Amino acid sequence: MTRRIYLDHAATCYPKSPLILDAMHEFSTQHEAAVGRGAYRASQQAGQIIARLRREIAAWIGAADDQEVSLHSGGTAALNAGLLGILTSGDHVVTTAAEHNSVLRPLQHLVANGSITWTVVPVDAQGQVSVDDVLSAVTPQTRMVAVVHAANVNGAVQPVEAIGRRLVDQFDPPAKPLLFIDAAQTFGHLPLSVTQAHIDVLAAPGHKGGSGPLGTGFLYVRREAQDRIRPTVFGGTGTRSESLEMPNDYPASFEAGNLNVPAYAGWLAGLRSRRAGTSPQKALETSRDLLAELASELYRGLEQVPGVRVIGRPRVPVLPVASIAIDGFAAGDAAMILDSEFGIEVRSGLHCAALIHPAIKSPDDGTVRISCGETTTREELELLFDALDQLCR
Amino acid sequence: MTRRIYLDHAATCYPKSPLILDAMHEFSTQHEAAVGRGAYRASQQAGQIIARLRREIAAWIGAADDQEVSLHSGGTAALNAGLLGILTSGDHVVTTAAEHNSVLRPLQHLVANGSITWTVVPVDAQGQVSVDDVLSAVTPQTRMVAVVHAANVNGAVQPVEAIGRRLVDQFDPPAKPLLFIDAAQTFGHLPLSVTQAHIDVLAAPGHKGGSGPLGTGFLYVRREAQDRIRPTVFGGTGTRSESLEMPNDYPASFEAGNLNVPAYAGWLAGLRSRRAGTSPQKALETSRDLLAELASELYRGLEQVPGVRVIGRPRVPVLPVASIAIDGFAAGDAAMILDSEFGIEVRSGLHCAALIHPAIKSPDDGTVRISCGETTTREELELLFDALDQLCR
Repeated sequence: MTRRIYLDHAATCYPKSPLILDAMHEFSTQHEAAVGRGAYRASQQAGQIIARLRREIAAWIGAADDQEVSLHSGGTAALNAGLLGILTSGDHVVTTAAEHNSVLRPLQHLVANGSITWTVVPVDAQGQVSVDDVLSAVTPQTRMVAVVHAANVNGAVQPVEAIGRRLVDQFDPPAKPLLFIDAAQTFGHLPLSVTQAHIDVLAAPGHKGGSGPLGTGFLYVRREAQDRIRPTVFGGTGTRSESLEMPNDYPASFEAGNLNVPAYAGWLAGLRSRRAGTSPQKALETSRDLLAELASELYRGLEQVPGVRVIGRPRVPVLPVASIAIDGFAAGDAAMILDSEFGIEVRSGLHCAALIHPAIKSPDDGTVRISCGETTTREELELLFDALDQLCR
Repeated sequence: MTRRIYLDHAATCYPKSPLILDAMHEFSTQHEAAVGRGAYRASQQAGQIIARLRREIAAWIGAADDQEVSLHSGGTAALNAGLLGILTSGDHVVTTAAEHNSVLRPLQHLVANGSITWTVVPVDAQGQVSVDDVLSAVTPQTRMVAVVHAANVNGAVQPVEAIGRRLVDQFDPPAKPLLFIDAAQTFGHLPLSVTQAHIDVLAAPGHKGGSGPLGTGFLYVRREAQDRIRPTVFGGTGTRSESLEMPNDYPASFEAGNLNVPAYAGWLAGLRSRRAGTSPQKALETSRDLLAELASELYRGLEQVPGVRVIGRPRVPVLPVASIAIDGFAAGDAAMILDSEFGIEVRSGLHCAALIHPAIKSPDDGTVRISCGETTTREELELLFDALDQLCR
């Protein structure tokens, strides 16, 4: 394969750091063992990787306690564990039109079977939800407010800190709805402290901003909310094996089955390398600044190509994620040509987000989405702009 | 770490073949992309890996159609998808005391919430279920007969072919209960054709007998049974993204979220290497013969060590998996000493199987389980026997 100009970081980051791959390889060749179920050292070492990763993730999200973090096979698995594990019959959920289908579809499943009701708060033409609208939608039955930290279609960052503060100001526990954040597009990219933002539950994959390999994700559940969540996947936990019931201990009870320790070892190495010599907080601030610069350049460049229409441009671009329409091209065709003619890899369509498109005025066949990561270079952006320019001539 | 004498293959196989790790590394460094959602070639290549793996697995289990195979992050995820996806309110399930908690606990969850009823058919002192007992437990409300192909505690292989035939002989569809097989301990080890054995649903991890890395598993659902299963994990499928409902198309609708393509690429390489120059059927027959020989040697050797008591010895050992008790040692202590003094890695306890132990007369603290794989050598078995001998002196 010729050189790849990879601009699909919102799907998964690429290239993965050699550190990640080396850690996976080392674990697989030397230490591989099932975690938490053996009485031998390799199994205990595997357990230590899990413990260290929990602590590492807790530090990256500002969690008070590493026992608030459970590990999952991806963001979708973690979101499902959180949503389906918490919501029960009669609950009302407030969510937004900016959500990914990995939030909308689990909720719709509960709505369709009559278990819950929901209010989907609309977004504006920038894909942005209003804090007031979210708060206005809360009713006495509202058990959860589920908001994506940043929309995957256009990178619009939602005001989750403000929503968190307003919920805490207006409601006393136990009446306060749980604040549930989908951080799929922001974990590892932007600073976000679950403690400071009053977030009760947060889910994210490890393989996007989180510097991990595919097959990784996590769920954060604040200690005070842990008695409101029940496992949704059942199986061996290596504990209380004589019992047919799942043990009632978050996080272990949410990790049934063999953990994918090689992948977690890789993820741990990735996160550690990024905060080496500094702290997760500093690493996140560096990443935020870098991505904001890339975002400015991306939007500026796109807006200068005649024939390119930016869809749902955020007021102030924070993440280098943009959706565009290209005059004279269906989205899928444009993406295919960008790849085959220019080696530029972008995504086309609706990007697994069912409800945001009417608000941001996407074409019927969706958008071409460009998404960058920390490793994206200016040169790659220039090549993109040139390619779009040639396409539009 | 010094040389590992790894006898915990029932947990995960080790060492993984370099072919597997090379395939994972190659995919991660060169082709990494999210599958099924991009309009670029790398994403399509990822899709081809998934398609090839589906076809490969179908060939190994004798499935008629590769679209009967969905991919999951492990055996537990696959079992949960099958059990919770099929069973609905009012169903009765027949299962056995030999099952792993990854079958018993999802079922118990449905029993506890009043959704289903179940009959757990007992096993004999060898951990063996009787075909007659299983068939006698079937009632007009029985929707599923769930049987583990081989018990993970002592390797007892259950008569699933005979159960399959009896179910087909005695019941016409749609009254025929679905035959659901947990092949966690046998996929890739023993020949089993879902077609010939009249199996409707089968789940297994990829990383045990299946020559794959951790993070892999699959679910087989016979075409005729696919309208009886619904997704239990909801999210992006890259298809019909405008819809809040999951698409109604097995297998894609059971694979929400980013697939762990590097792991699947490794698994594909592992399976292919094993049947290179022959066929899956021949490879399985070779494996079966090899494992049966190992099983004979394992049981013969264990029975010759004074102070070792074999727990639940199968009449004819087929799999080299054995549970033992050692005079004067708690199971956990024995396993720890075998590791620290002799570098022998075995597991202790109840092995995530809640119900088999009273029948096979395990000690209260469980057993020491020795489990071998295709790569286990005679020399390793001799070292085990010597170590046990020293332990018992």
